[in-house]
Amino acid sequence: MEQQDKFARLLGIKLEAASPGYARASLTVRPDMLNAVQVTQGGVTFTLADFAFAVASNSHGITSLALSTQLSFPGTSREGDRLIAEAREENSTKRTGLYTVEVRTAEGRLVGLFSGTVFRRSDLVADWMEKNADPGG
Amino acid sequence: MEQQDKFARLLGIKLEAASPGYARASLTVRPDMLNAVQVTQGGVTFTLADFAFAVASNSHGITSLALSTQLSFPGTSREGDRLIAEAREENSTKRTGLYTVEVRTAEGRLVGLFSGTVFRRSDLVADWMEKNADPGG
Amino acid sequence: MEQQDKFARLLGIKLEAASPGYARASLTVRPDMLNAVQVTQGGVTFTLADFAFAVASNSHGITSLALSTQLSFPGTSREGDRLIAEAREENSTKRTGLYTVEVRTAEGRLVGLFSGTVFRRSDLVADWMEKNADPGG
Amino acid sequence: MEQQDKFARLLGIKLEAASPGYARASLTVRPDMLNAVQVTQGGVTFTLADFAFAVASNSHGITSLALSTQLSFPGTSREGDRLIAEAREENSTKRTGLYTVEVRTAEGRLVGLFSGTVFRRSDLVADWMEKNADPGG
Repeated sequence: MEQQDKFARLLGIKLEAASPGYARASLTVRPDMLNAVQVTQGGVTFTLADFAFAVASNSHGITSLALSTQLSFPGTSREGDRLIAEAREENSTKRTGLYTVEVRTAEGRLVGLFSGTVFRRSDLVADWMEKNADPGG
Repeated sequence: MEQQDKFARLLGIKLEAASPGYARASLTVRPDMLNAVQVTQGGVTFTLADFAFAVASNSHGITSLALSTQLSFPGTSREGDRLIAEAREENSTKRTGLYTVEVRTAEGRLVGLFSGTVFRRSDLVADWMEKNADPGG
Repeated sequence: MEQQDKFARLLGIKLEAASPGYARASLTVRPDMLNAVQVTQGGVTFTLADFAFAVASNSHGITSLALSTQLSFPGTSREGDRLIAEAREENSTKRTGLYTVEVRTAEGRLVGLFSGTVFRRSDLVADWMEKNADPGG
Repeated sequence: MEQQDKFARLLGIKLEAASPGYARASLTVRPDMLNAVQVTQGGVTFTLADFAFAVASNSHGITSLALSTQLSFPGTSREGDRLIAEAREENSTKRTGLYTVEVRTAEGRLVGLFSGTVFRRSDLVADWMEKNADPGG
């Protein structure tokens, strides 16, 4: 999935682990991911958390679409930091799901606390990705 | 500020307007901003909204740090779409601020609804940016 | 609906207006709605906003269940203040909906900014309420 | 604090445990806490979570004001259910704090997942409560 997600690829995001209702992903903060005061731009932290959320929520094979997300910033990270996002399923029904994601530095410092809600469609992830495949990808 | 924010620059974000408590920014969705099913990755929409939020919340000259953000996805956008984020101040005190951001396509379709809370430090943005300037920037 | 919602009744909430995708509700802050420092307890503001959200999101006749809500507190209110919540539909699909609610004092001061996401079931509100009616209500 | 918080008292909320950065509170769902379809009104779950959040965030003795809260509803509860909210500190600085609250039934089923951000003022809780004491309380 990190190969097909071109924006995750642009950020060098790696999927490290995935199982039903769970995902772990990481990236290393590059110079071009900093904001105007040399700390990691909030969008980088969000993208990593959101990617782990997407993998975890689609892990049952049913297409799941993000409806609403929330991200708090308990800390900051800097160039060279390795960030690890761990997504867990808090609840799952046929049609909905709730996930939380913690983003930590390699040293274990919390830099992002994320929650996200999905709506599950009635089609399968595999079919949906095939139908929407990038012809050039 | 879009020049100093290197991640905003990576995404081609342009600051179109800014005044006290207000900002408008835009980007055009590139092929490398899509997710696995060829729609704009949520992190792109977040980064644009967050950038407008940062400009609006720092527009009074007092350093403002994002504590918490929320983003809902009422619609999707695709390659080539021009996205425009408009940030407005809903409340501002000496120490805190609340902002909402709407992200729309050029046709006016709502694709992101964002809110963010900041804590205001006691230093000035100008001093803070100078102190944390990128030596190589 | 404010008659059947017993908790809304306990708080003296009045539904003032409702139309497809819209609702307006109000209450007057009583002494038993204050917190330890004599301002309106956050749960009162939430309940009023959530009630308006429930009416607006169920206004199309399709049962809509709240998945996720967000409430910011840009101001405080006090005993005797009349609070008015106005809910608007930002997006609606067959299965999902996004609503924002502003809570203001009668003087127009913003004291709560709320957003909420719903999942729409496949049954009708009328059937669902009948099936779950309070036998003693 | 549950004695001084009159709205918490109206709902029969009990503070069960509190320590620096932590609080646990409970209530039993009464008939007058149900919504139109006989499940616990969202405002009841919010008030319980928000009360635990307030106790935990003020537990260091520094006045802490809620800026922004988020509540998801992974499950529902009913009349007679005992709900327990457990608040934990995820981050704390001199001026800000981030807390998460889980609301579960006595059987351990998750019915509310809450997060909240506070701004810390420069006065003490004890002084602030004395200054704002209810003369008739």
